[in-house]
Amino acid sequence: MTDQNPVFIPGPTNMPDRLRRAIQIQTRDHRAPDFVDTFAPVLEDTKKVFGSTEGKIITFPASGTGGWEAAVTNTLSPGDKILVGRYGVFSNKWIDLCQRHGLDVQIVETPWGEGVPADKFAEILAADTAHEIKAVLTTHNETATGVRSDIAAVRRALDGADHPAMLFVDCVSSLASMPFEFDAWGVDIAVSGSQKGFMLPTGMAILCVSPKALAAIETAGLSRTFFDFRDMMKANATGGFPYTPPLQLIYGLRESLDMLFEEGLENVYARHFRLAEGVRRAVDAWGMKLVAKSPDLYSDTVSAVYVPEGFDSNALTDHAYRAYKVSFGVGLGQLDGKAFRIGHLGSLTDVMVLSGLATIEMAMADLNYPITLGSGVAAAQEYYRTSRVAALKSAA
Amino acid sequence: MTDQNPVFIPGPTNMPDRLRRAIQIQTRDHRAPDFVDTFAPVLEDTKKVFGSTEGKIITFPASGTGGWEAAVTNTLSPGDKILVGRYGVFSNKWIDLCQRHGLDVQIVETPWGEGVPADKFAEILAADTAHEIKAVLTTHNETATGVRSDIAAVRRALDGADHPAMLFVDCVSSLASMPFEFDAWGVDIAVSGSQKGFMLPTGMAILCVSPKALAAIETAGLSRTFFDFRDMMKANATGGFPYTPPLQLIYGLRESLDMLFEEGLENVYARHFRLAEGVRRAVDAWGMKLVAKSPDLYSDTVSAVYVPEGFDSNALTDHAYRAYKVSFGVGLGQLDGKAFRIGHLGSLTDVMVLSGLATIEMAMADLNYPITLGSGVAAAQEYYRTSRVAALKSAA
Amino acid sequence: MTDQNPVFIPGPTNMPDRLRRAIQIQTRDHRAPDFVDTFAPVLEDTKKVFGSTEGKIITFPASGTGGWEAAVTNTLSPGDKILVGRYGVFSNKWIDLCQRHGLDVQIVETPWGEGVPADKFAEILAADTAHEIKAVLTTHNETATGVRSDIAAVRRALDGADHPAMLFVDCVSSLASMPFEFDAWGVDIAVSGSQKGFMLPTGMAILCVSPKALAAIETAGLSRTFFDFRDMMKANATGGFPYTPPLQLIYGLRESLDMLFEEGLENVYARHFRLAEGVRRAVDAWGMKLVAKSPDLYSDTVSAVYVPEGFDSNALTDHAYRAYKVSFGVGLGQLDGKAFRIGHLGSLTDVMVLSGLATIEMAMADLNYPITLGSGVAAAQEYYRTSRVAALKSAA
Amino acid sequence: MTDQNPVFIPGPTNMPDRLRRAIQIQTRDHRAPDFVDTFAPVLEDTKKVFGSTEGKIITFPASGTGGWEAAVTNTLSPGDKILVGRYGVFSNKWIDLCQRHGLDVQIVETPWGEGVPADKFAEILAADTAHEIKAVLTTHNETATGVRSDIAAVRRALDGADHPAMLFVDCVSSLASMPFEFDAWGVDIAVSGSQKGFMLPTGMAILCVSPKALAAIETAGLSRTFFDFRDMMKANATGGFPYTPPLQLIYGLRESLDMLFEEGLENVYARHFRLAEGVRRAVDAWGMKLVAKSPDLYSDTVSAVYVPEGFDSNALTDHAYRAYKVSFGVGLGQLDGKAFRIGHLGSLTDVMVLSGLATIEMAMADLNYPITLGSGVAAAQEYYRTSRVAALKSAA
Repeated sequence: MTDQNPVFIPGPTNMPDRLRRAIQIQTRDHRAPDFVDTFAPVLEDTKKVFGSTEGKIITFPASGTGGWEAAVTNTLSPGDKILVGRYGVFSNKWIDLCQRHGLDVQIVETPWGEGVPADKFAEILAADTAHEIKAVLTTHNETATGVRSDIAAVRRALDGADHPAMLFVDCVSSLASMPFEFDAWGVDIAVSGSQKGFMLPTGMAILCVSPKALAAIETAGLSRTFFDFRDMMKANATGGFPYTPPLQLIYGLRESLDMLFEEGLENVYARHFRLAEGVRRAVDAWGMKLVAKSPDLYSDTVSAVYVPEGFDSNALTDHAYRAYKVSFGVGLGQLDGKAFRIGHLGSLTDVMVLSGLATIEMAMADLNYPITLGSGVAAAQEYYRTSRVAALKSAA
Repeated sequence: MTDQNPVFIPGPTNMPDRLRRAIQIQTRDHRAPDFVDTFAPVLEDTKKVFGSTEGKIITFPASGTGGWEAAVTNTLSPGDKILVGRYGVFSNKWIDLCQRHGLDVQIVETPWGEGVPADKFAEILAADTAHEIKAVLTTHNETATGVRSDIAAVRRALDGADHPAMLFVDCVSSLASMPFEFDAWGVDIAVSGSQKGFMLPTGMAILCVSPKALAAIETAGLSRTFFDFRDMMKANATGGFPYTPPLQLIYGLRESLDMLFEEGLENVYARHFRLAEGVRRAVDAWGMKLVAKSPDLYSDTVSAVYVPEGFDSNALTDHAYRAYKVSFGVGLGQLDGKAFRIGHLGSLTDVMVLSGLATIEMAMADLNYPITLGSGVAAAQEYYRTSRVAALKSAA
Repeated sequence: MTDQNPVFIPGPTNMPDRLRRAIQIQTRDHRAPDFVDTFAPVLEDTKKVFGSTEGKIITFPASGTGGWEAAVTNTLSPGDKILVGRYGVFSNKWIDLCQRHGLDVQIVETPWGEGVPADKFAEILAADTAHEIKAVLTTHNETATGVRSDIAAVRRALDGADHPAMLFVDCVSSLASMPFEFDAWGVDIAVSGSQKGFMLPTGMAILCVSPKALAAIETAGLSRTFFDFRDMMKANATGGFPYTPPLQLIYGLRESLDMLFEEGLENVYARHFRLAEGVRRAVDAWGMKLVAKSPDLYSDTVSAVYVPEGFDSNALTDHAYRAYKVSFGVGLGQLDGKAFRIGHLGSLTDVMVLSGLATIEMAMADLNYPITLGSGVAAAQEYYRTSRVAALKSAA
Repeated sequence: MTDQNPVFIPGPTNMPDRLRRAIQIQTRDHRAPDFVDTFAPVLEDTKKVFGSTEGKIITFPASGTGGWEAAVTNTLSPGDKILVGRYGVFSNKWIDLCQRHGLDVQIVETPWGEGVPADKFAEILAADTAHEIKAVLTTHNETATGVRSDIAAVRRALDGADHPAMLFVDCVSSLASMPFEFDAWGVDIAVSGSQKGFMLPTGMAILCVSPKALAAIETAGLSRTFFDFRDMMKANATGGFPYTPPLQLIYGLRESLDMLFEEGLENVYARHFRLAEGVRRAVDAWGMKLVAKSPDLYSDTVSAVYVPEGFDSNALTDHAYRAYKVSFGVGLGQLDGKAFRIGHLGSLTDVMVLSGLATIEMAMADLNYPITLGSGVAAAQEYYRTSRVAALKSAA
């Protein structure tokens, strides 16, 4: 009966019933007018979630990794120089992908637990007077460390150096959960997916692309077909797809957008903050530490938590699953064995989060962690109830 | 997003995904061989859950109340004398139904929080040497008070008096959750429904009927058509139904039986005990009292909990729903305003129960109850984790 | 893969995806405000389908048979005289039910294939100057014969005799498919169900009750509990149910009403006529005869078709199911072996009907019926296409 | 109510209810043991459908086009020479993809309606004594023309020339519908997808890869990350995925395989032949011609049908959709306006096909095609019924 318990991995996220129903579409002809009439507004409305009016939405039946590959191969050429910080597993994956495609990757090593090194970027960009750097690649929310980076600061670094490099942002685990400002931050390509803030199954890479990035297509020398922006845009222009579209997910995205807009994006963000803050109160009550080094870096979608010295975080997540049938995120890369992660994004309630906290407490107690049962739960309860009661009063 | 949180009402119960899928049957012809081949084994297998080999399963597209009416109208005649104890809302509903159908109801008033008055029944039955009492009506699990009665004791009372009265048992909120022994207890009609231990939507009354009760049909003078056992048995004999059957629920019952048998009925009962015991530990930690007066009466499917003097249980359940979108059972009848109920039956896990306990704690704190946040949760956690670890060890 | 083919039984009907999704509701608390807010408008909107503003909608978790029993037991007393015509299996079931409940049933035997004997009723009612007849019972659409009766004519018979008897109508297989005028026809109780024109699973009896019928409750002497109008109305008044409601079906009825209103009731009726007319053209092309004796009696929801002399209609429907996995209605009662039935109601298209006609043609050819393959299909095609093209032109 | 009618496009195909339910999986942790235990056998069992014991199954969350790109980029280097025949839109897409990736594509132009030019290939391969040709690319079933090619003949051409080039086959629209013999035909990479014979939604590219093709990875110089076989195989080896897997489709593929094996692959192929043959009889009865030039080339999954001179096939498919809400395949490429296509693959029955034939006949009649209503239907009926009756007799 494991389907009854929520998952606390940082995506794919728990699907709400409304979306589960919405994707139960019998096969329809994707060349028929009904599909065309549905698809175009979906693309248009998705922009709002990115915080963009000028960008173009491009989707692929793929995962976020496919979205990254699309971003890179459509805009860059072999040997192009790019600038990127390495501060977690997912930023490292960007780097690996670029290297495989023959790009010249300038890596700024950054301690895990910190965010994008905007100051260091500023120096490098200012020094690059020949404008050899074609793109700066960043990870908005590093899922491995639970760190949210300051993308606006990267934009300031670019503008301060008057540098024309494109700005690419991985927002797979932040979009539709934390504020994202594509236009205001001057982002050129933002890459997300269906399975996080959109609360859908895995299967759609969702990108927002600026006019500047679109212009770069013409000179981009990397090869691609499946991920070619031009084929996709040409087909999209008449409501179609260059190959068979993921019909069910597109209808699901329609409903997901409706849910997000009905709740209001600001309320969606506030809900994620509130859920995350409860988790942070619990971590504090346990006497444990987040991987994220300071509050301005705290992610509202995932918290990575160091286990005490002498304990193995993998044993903890493994035991939680085997004993209680609840999944938490494992520690990745440098954090393997040292930290576990609590995903708190998507369609989630305070009530559900409390069940996750209660579960991990039991698992920790089973493994003789020095924590008091109920302590983290109580800290989260206190925060959740006071913030809820305050909200009810202000609504009244 | 209320569908994300479990309900803690004592039924209908949270449906597992497997059953939700199983009932998604497109319309099929109920006169076709496929249905016939499915239905007969369902009836046969349902007997096992009642603990019967000699009984006959009879179902109606109705609620449990309809099942009661079927039991009474198929076996009794206007003016017939019946014996019944009143110790809660649901036992009282039996009484009301019998009175409306013109039966002569001898009521044994019993304090709420106690179970079936078997000793008093023994006296009355012994005194009834003329055997005017035609049936004894009992409620196995009184959902209003969280009391499980000792049906075997009623059988002993009947046998001790060598009395031929039929024994009817309402097991709507106990079957498939707590042990039930139709044959061993000498039950003549047991009435249950689809929406509790069977984890299905409301819509099917499910009865088990003894040969003695079936024999009573011929002389039963009360009128009925929809609920007539004879029409149903005649149609069932060839795999059919006397009118349109609730096809989806019948396929769902097939899957529900499969789930129960795969888990093992003994394990199902043990799971319900474990979940219930955690709730009771929490209640104790809160310094509160169950309505059920002694441990032998504790129900494993629902706990009715007195709120402290000066508090209104309706305000509590109402606030829990409005603030946290979690439903608990309200206090019924005499307990209106004085007790709330936690349903812990059906497809439920320890993890889910902990979310319910955490939620009601928040609601109590919001309303200034003298409880400590996390106290009940911690007591339940301790019980759940030690019993789980013990189970894992014994399985290893 | 039988779920792929439509059924052509006269209900339960093929469920559209939209309704299949709508009923996939996880368990919710039926005492919570969300349910209350949903249920009341459902009751109100259902009136429109009955063509009533003055009636009261009462629903039970039961089949249509349960609805009949509710109608009779809430308004009549043992020994009351009722007037009814017998012209098919379902009108006969009314009669049987009334007799079992001790009513004095005056039966007007009517040839099958004809409708309600309004003229004969007029005579009888005029002769009943003592007003001993308390109710006239009619079947709007006799599902066994494919005959639609003229209910307005019965009203005229009552009014012509200035007779105060109540008028009860079984509209199980006509409502939401053919025009029904509760108020205009002066109906006192109309009984329908969820599984026909409402396109939902079986499980809800749906009644519309006039103020006059409601007033009769107070003096009605027949016993009932589950089906008691008073309990239901009392609970409904505050958005509740006297026992556990069929939650999923109520949410499904909400969506069904939305679908009916979006299409427009007039268009729903026109669609049923069109589909039925195509079937009738096919029957004519086969050189076969409908059971319904004249066009004014033709039902738009089901056609009963006589097989030629020397053929067994049961062998035909049985073979169609075994060879092609398509269900048609069998001949019932007097028509057993003599006629088969094609159900053409609910969520159905001309395209689907053509597959049914093609299938029964194959089955007939397999059994050496004197028909030409494709002949009925072609006749239906010609009608469907010309009426479709005409509709498209008038819409343009 | 368009969801009620089947689609007759050549994929995505009509999904059976069983698969629609199977993919309704709530989010699960793809790193948990349950997923691992499910995934490995799915990969193993999928081999059977390809007719392989030596190949390795590799899947990607992508469409068939993505599968092609994976095949090419994992095994070839820029400038590599490949041999391919152009005989339809989909074979042309292979060519375009290879050219975009900088391959040296030798194209054998072949009239549409014919299949793979094996004889011409034999000549070219024999002449290529330097073995410059690294791969031969073929399309097993050309979806645009309804032509099935003889892949074994291509193997004979390779073997006859003793040529080491790899053999790649696009079997997107043939696998799990027509016989495929990966091992016997010496295929090196076969590319399929979830949305055709597997009857699932679009979203999974499914490849079978020979040891020879796997060995080619090490020297393949084309860039790829998302589609890298090595990452996928490394992760698959421990039951995992290199990124988030399409969980729902993997569970769906499990059920799809179960369905295929329960029916028996031979029976699946026979069913497709039978359905296709009925369509061909209808086309013949209409006096129209298939695009496929001879019976040995006839596809059992899709029939492309020339419309008569002076008629526009796009007007026909467009009208069929607008008037009857039924989708057929449009004419693609050279066949734009000249032919329409009837998809008859996946979860389909003779009864459903008849509805498609009846519909297109109406549409043709509406547009004044010189055909007789019912003529094609009758021809198909005759074939379907005689073949069905024969099958029933042989089963008896």
